[in-house]
Amino acid sequence: MADRFLALDWGTTNLRAFIADAAGRPLLRRDFPLGVAGLAPGEAAQRFVNEVRPAMQAEALPALLCGMIGSTLGWQAVPYADCPATFSGLAGALQRVEAEGPPVWIVPGLRTQRPDGGPDVMRGEETHIFGWAMADPGRQRGTHLVCHPGTHAKWARVVDNRIDQFVTAMTGELFALLRTHSALKVAGAVPSDSAFEQGLAAAGDGGALASRLFTARARVVGGNMDPKDVESYLSGLLIGAEVAATPALLGIGQGADIAIIGDPALCEHYRRAMDWHGYAASLFDGEAAVLAGLAAFYRERHPC
Amino acid sequence: MADRFLALDWGTTNLRAFIADAAGRPLLRRDFPLGVAGLAPGEAAQRFVNEVRPAMQAEALPALLCGMIGSTLGWQAVPYADCPATFSGLAGALQRVEAEGPPVWIVPGLRTQRPDGGPDVMRGEETHIFGWAMADPGRQRGTHLVCHPGTHAKWARVVDNRIDQFVTAMTGELFALLRTHSALKVAGAVPSDSAFEQGLAAAGDGGALASRLFTARARVVGGNMDPKDVESYLSGLLIGAEVAATPALLGIGQGADIAIIGDPALCEHYRRAMDWHGYAASLFDGEAAVLAGLAAFYRERHPC
Repeated sequence: MADRFLALDWGTTNLRAFIADAAGRPLLRRDFPLGVAGLAPGEAAQRFVNEVRPAMQAEALPALLCGMIGSTLGWQAVPYADCPATFSGLAGALQRVEAEGPPVWIVPGLRTQRPDGGPDVMRGEETHIFGWAMADPGRQRGTHLVCHPGTHAKWARVVDNRIDQFVTAMTGELFALLRTHSALKVAGAVPSDSAFEQGLAAAGDGGALASRLFTARARVVGGNMDPKDVESYLSGLLIGAEVAATPALLGIGQGADIAIIGDPALCEHYRRAMDWHGYAASLFDGEAAVLAGLAAFYRERHPC
Repeated sequence: MADRFLALDWGTTNLRAFIADAAGRPLLRRDFPLGVAGLAPGEAAQRFVNEVRPAMQAEALPALLCGMIGSTLGWQAVPYADCPATFSGLAGALQRVEAEGPPVWIVPGLRTQRPDGGPDVMRGEETHIFGWAMADPGRQRGTHLVCHPGTHAKWARVVDNRIDQFVTAMTGELFALLRTHSALKVAGAVPSDSAFEQGLAAAGDGGALASRLFTARARVVGGNMDPKDVESYLSGLLIGAEVAATPALLGIGQGADIAIIGDPALCEHYRRAMDWHGYAASLFDGEAAVLAGLAAFYRERHPC
């Protein structure tokens, strides 16, 4: 096997590229403004061959890709794998795509049946979650709750190193909509820890969200809140409501351990909300997670 | 007393004007595109005197105004009256504003303490609610739950003809944000009763809203829903979540009667959601309600 490979976390708004060794250690890292939302049909393959691979000096290396690149917007639609999904099962379902040069694989996304009915889907987070699990043998046994915050936050129940079931919460997108387009938007927001905590308190048990959100406006109009605190208050309210409601949806009881994977600053907000609700949370960097996941898939397909 | 008066429901996006008799019967009706959101400071008074009153041929008539015209965006900021608010107490708090010609009064908005903490406010809906109550003596005794759907829906507990407490749910605004700006937006939506009912079912107990909303996207991506049905599904999900959670917030038990005041088509959506959740709902036209309310305030200030 090659001792190095090209690892791409290719999402909706950005492409993060690494040269990594088989243990997932990064040797080179570079971002490209090539999120699939901005690509024309057929453009992904062409950009990969003509631009990304040469820029990474990776013309001789195999490549592993995860994220929305495997959707209809990306290189090609790779069918979802169904939950429960084991690491080895997903590794066996990697989709090789047509490209000149060394092989290129895309990691399939996952599909689940939500506990409250209907389907749910993810693309990319499965690689982060398995990367988190493969980084420590203790995570490959027993039941774990993993939270991956973001525009569309993913919460997964991981049992004996298989992703059993998950749900998505569009908390990040609601926050962006409210701060940008709604009657709650304010100019000159200033981050505030105490306003964030007031939001956590206002979230209650996570119910009646459309009603609790309006308390931001009512507090400002009633003179109980400085407008510059509204964004932190809304952040606390939305994240608090998500943390209050989601573990129970997945059958996880209060006081459980939760692993949070993602951007460290955002993860810290979630950690505070989990602490508020009595969960013990540990943080794991999202970039380390995706590298560990892609490297684990690479090793599975290229055993030494 | 004059046997006729000028009745204005002057809101954020529109001004609805009536000439009415003291019983609240409309003799003339006209809309003006003069919502307070588009007015410069001082403009409301000038538009009223130079444009609205002449167009209504009401130069000799007293005028009663309700809605956002009593906010900092409107004619002048009229202080909120606090809940519990009786009809006669609010009638006594009408604010006369400076204008040449016959007197002009603005109905104060209401402020409450929400049962889940923090303040809440309304401007305009108090007049609709008292109008609904004054239209039938039976509504002036006992406990009633009144729902006023809209961009910011108001739910009020009315006890012995006083507005005891209320909460706002920004359901209408969330729907507009999601269908216009979010990852859930779709082109070519077609209203669908069955998609609306699927949304009602997906709303569950009203909790975990940020998570349940994503099921719209997951159903489309997973091939379980036609994109043209997404808007009706979201409408059912948001209204269903509101109806599931709000009565209990106000201490009203399942199976209670609910009066819905507002636009008949929107009210009908709420009626279906209430029926789904086991509430008996009756509809009352919003235009009739505001006229009845303004006329009742007018009679109280100008006893025959």
